[in-house]
Amino acid sequence: MAKINKINHVAIVVADLDQALTFWRDALGIELSHVEDVPSQKAAVAFLPVGDSEVELVKPTSDDSGTAKFLAERGGGMHHLCFEVDDITAKLAELKEKGVRLINETPMELPGRKMAFIHPKSTGGVLVELYEVLH
Amino acid sequence: MAKINKINHVAIVVADLDQALTFWRDALGIELSHVEDVPSQKAAVAFLPVGDSEVELVKPTSDDSGTAKFLAERGGGMHHLCFEVDDITAKLAELKEKGVRLINETPMELPGRKMAFIHPKSTGGVLVELYEVLH
Repeated sequence: MAKINKINHVAIVVADLDQALTFWRDALGIELSHVEDVPSQKAAVAFLPVGDSEVELVKPTSDDSGTAKFLAERGGGMHHLCFEVDDITAKLAELKEKGVRLINETPMELPGRKMAFIHPKSTGGVLVELYEVLH
Repeated sequence: MAKINKINHVAIVVADLDQALTFWRDALGIELSHVEDVPSQKAAVAFLPVGDSEVELVKPTSDDSGTAKFLAERGGGMHHLCFEVDDITAKLAELKEKGVRLINETPMELPGRKMAFIHPKSTGGVLVELYEVLH
């Protein structure tokens, strides 16, 4: 069985990155690594490493994305939970075999990483991302 | 400034622990450490360590708890995000000083640990728990 190694990140949708950073960085005290525009997700993302994982603050940059809808409906909050897996292709095959509903049956490939989402219908309401770091 | 060391756990509210474990343990493959009745939280909790953190599946055991309300309103999902801090008393004082709204101004004490919740009004909609391990 492909192995889940750790929580890679918890993604939190926010309306305004600067305002969100006044809590997560300035008050709570988690250091900001960097802010990056992520066109594939139609978002600007602030990365805040903590321990062996990250908090990612996600600001939608377009109205037609899943995170933009989430922001409009819920006003922000925890959006998805991402686990690092050693072999994402094998893990997706195992999940499919077990009847788990996948959003991405084959992983999306970006430089240095592959990722895929599992449908919340199969997880009890949690949007779960799988993430493989390519070496 | 008191230091946030890592994500201690992500708490996920579920209607049924056995059913939830068919996804988190059996399909996703995160090992179950143990299930514990936690009367202080009016819940039964399944602990699934992953990397340096844990996934906690929280099944309300009473109708009048915050998690029971969350389950009734949202049907379950990610409920709170817990960070381990080296000095929770100092961190709560810092947060209060910065105008952050706290649910617990002084930490709750349980054997081996102290914990406190920060109000979602101050975090952009995320219920944040702080946790100090007592040595």
